[in-house]
Amino acid sequence: MGHRAAIIGAGHTRFGAMPDGPRSLLRSAVDQAFQSVDRGLDRASVTDAYLASLGFGGWQIGNASTVMAEEAGLTGVPTVRVENACASGGFALRAAVNAVRSGATALALVVGLEKMTDQPAARRRYWLGVSGDTEWERLAGLTFAGVYGLIAARYLAEHHVGREALSEVARKNHENGALNPNAHFQKRVTREDVERAAKVASPLGLYDCCPVSDGAAALLVAPAEAARQYTDTPVYVDGMGAGSDYLAVQERADLTRFAATRWAMDGALHEAGVSRGAISFLEVHDCFTIAELLALEDLGFAEPGAAGPLTLSGATARTGRLPVNPDGGLKAKGHPIGATGVSQAYEVFQQLRRAAGARQVPGAERALTHNVGGAGATASVAVYSVG
Amino acid sequence: MGHRAAIIGAGHTRFGAMPDGPRSLLRSAVDQAFQSVDRGLDRASVTDAYLASLGFGGWQIGNASTVMAEEAGLTGVPTVRVENACASGGFALRAAVNAVRSGATALALVVGLEKMTDQPAARRRYWLGVSGDTEWERLAGLTFAGVYGLIAARYLAEHHVGREALSEVARKNHENGALNPNAHFQKRVTREDVERAAKVASPLGLYDCCPVSDGAAALLVAPAEAARQYTDTPVYVDGMGAGSDYLAVQERADLTRFAATRWAMDGALHEAGVSRGAISFLEVHDCFTIAELLALEDLGFAEPGAAGPLTLSGATARTGRLPVNPDGGLKAKGHPIGATGVSQAYEVFQQLRRAAGARQVPGAERALTHNVGGAGATASVAVYSVG
Repeated sequence: MGHRAAIIGAGHTRFGAMPDGPRSLLRSAVDQAFQSVDRGLDRASVTDAYLASLGFGGWQIGNASTVMAEEAGLTGVPTVRVENACASGGFALRAAVNAVRSGATALALVVGLEKMTDQPAARRRYWLGVSGDTEWERLAGLTFAGVYGLIAARYLAEHHVGREALSEVARKNHENGALNPNAHFQKRVTREDVERAAKVASPLGLYDCCPVSDGAAALLVAPAEAARQYTDTPVYVDGMGAGSDYLAVQERADLTRFAATRWAMDGALHEAGVSRGAISFLEVHDCFTIAELLALEDLGFAEPGAAGPLTLSGATARTGRLPVNPDGGLKAKGHPIGATGVSQAYEVFQQLRRAAGARQVPGAERALTHNVGGAGATASVAVYSVG
Repeated sequence: MGHRAAIIGAGHTRFGAMPDGPRSLLRSAVDQAFQSVDRGLDRASVTDAYLASLGFGGWQIGNASTVMAEEAGLTGVPTVRVENACASGGFALRAAVNAVRSGATALALVVGLEKMTDQPAARRRYWLGVSGDTEWERLAGLTFAGVYGLIAARYLAEHHVGREALSEVARKNHENGALNPNAHFQKRVTREDVERAAKVASPLGLYDCCPVSDGAAALLVAPAEAARQYTDTPVYVDGMGAGSDYLAVQERADLTRFAATRWAMDGALHEAGVSRGAISFLEVHDCFTIAELLALEDLGFAEPGAAGPLTLSGATARTGRLPVNPDGGLKAKGHPIGATGVSQAYEVFQQLRRAAGARQVPGAERALTHNVGGAGATASVAVYSVG
């Protein structure tokens, strides 16, 4: 491997139904990332910039990365858009880390952004639908909630798990979100609330689904040997792994396991040279409550079928043995598509630097992020430590 | 810099109004790239894959990179889409080269693809339009031909250059395209044909504009130290540079110079450690005839206003002193948006290995590719040599 990559700054807007347009969201996250650098950073130091976005507010479909150059005050720097649907952020971070490792890039900016809540409902459905398989799923009327509903039904039946495991994921993540000032939902819910909610795609109800959100997040990534000139506590990216599977769920060997997550995890652990036991907390891709259970199993923190009991035991709560989604996850923090993977790394940056405030995970030393695109079609995993 | 990157295989479909859909085009280019590897290559050796595409045929807008995984027989490998409008291919190659340089990637596949000719005309206009500035250009009705028409009018007036310089770019590139079996147009035109053609956006006529094309191209990129196990003649990527400018032309300092190209060229020459004089031929982004003249000047091969006389002198013909676009360029070979930057590197691979057949540039040792997104908003430049 080449240079070790380190995150030296991070910014984050509030997620939710925001009055801001995409330019304003982008500028806020980027400004905050620069302001967060302990000993300051001149924008002219940035030599490379990556934008993760699926639709950039619906108006600048092509070439949106140049709008980032404009708004971030970075004309002159190479900017590029990286898109893997809901995993865009994780893959943009991966591209930036590779560029830093290669020695070609002295300082990279990564921005994740989506502006969704002002889109007409029909366009929003199209927009989300286009990230699933078109030929066998979307054109047959199968939405993402529909796919995950099928997966959840099969999972509960196969493993004889009750739906209270799903409800507990929602309850826990809403509890964490209530402590996160950037979360879309800062409101606690009970398991009963989750179970009484209107059905979206059985067995998934309203509180089993992440919301449609606006928001942006930004990271600054430097080679480790330069990082200490900016801060005493850089957050190192020790390992990254990624993998892509068939897009259509029907083509895959197993409905209740995501091979892409397993491939990504293998790669990340191999690069980082650490074992699962060394990881203090996880940020996983809980677009639906069932997805958090699948993630725990595919990442290897629980045997197939065991993630439900693990969750119900309280182990994945913020103060549990293996906290999962201390920021509220996609479920409560919100899911502005391109921003999500970048937001996960933002949370790691805050937690490992002991700057997460009321939602601080005690004793966090190492962390993992897990970002998925499509219904498990593509995944990116990263492992971090603090210096 | 980390590992040196080398291209060890390349594939290319015919460009044009093709009967094939995007899956078939993709598969053809990838199959050909694997078949082109002199000592063979197992698909299982690929560890990373990049897709350059603006619209993937209009149906798989999000997560198209996983369709590449399916069609290329690469499920398990990380795949990601890179999009910078018409410069997507050049930026995808850059991301792959950075991944190889970093040591994280042992073998990368880069695919460029667009399927455009079966789109309804209105959607095609939208699709191209969305890559220009939306707020100040597209919504005001300014198309790409319109922007380049304004630039051409200003350039001709400012430099007292006659439009025969534009006509000669078209004549030369059609002559080259006539020798390229993959070109969209394999037909010679005279300067008089160009000047008599219907006007599109004055002074640009039909033959000043590249066509709307379907097509795909693919590259295999390995670290140099491994390249010789696959071939005796790898093509090395010695330097890459890139830059992004304001997207809206009105925000820029100069209408007839593209700063993004200059920034990209500075970066590429710096990395490669060579001077312009060492470069045998160029592949430049001639989406309109005027763009080839601008490229020659912004890349530093001609002073401002001197690219016209240089072109009229015959210097940029295939057998001239500095051949430009020996494959016919976007003008005659065609311009399937995401495929273009990858196709330019394919041409370099063929030419530097003396495999370009009837269009072979005599004595080609080093080459340069130049790929632009938007009307000069973003650019990627690469410099290559043969081993």
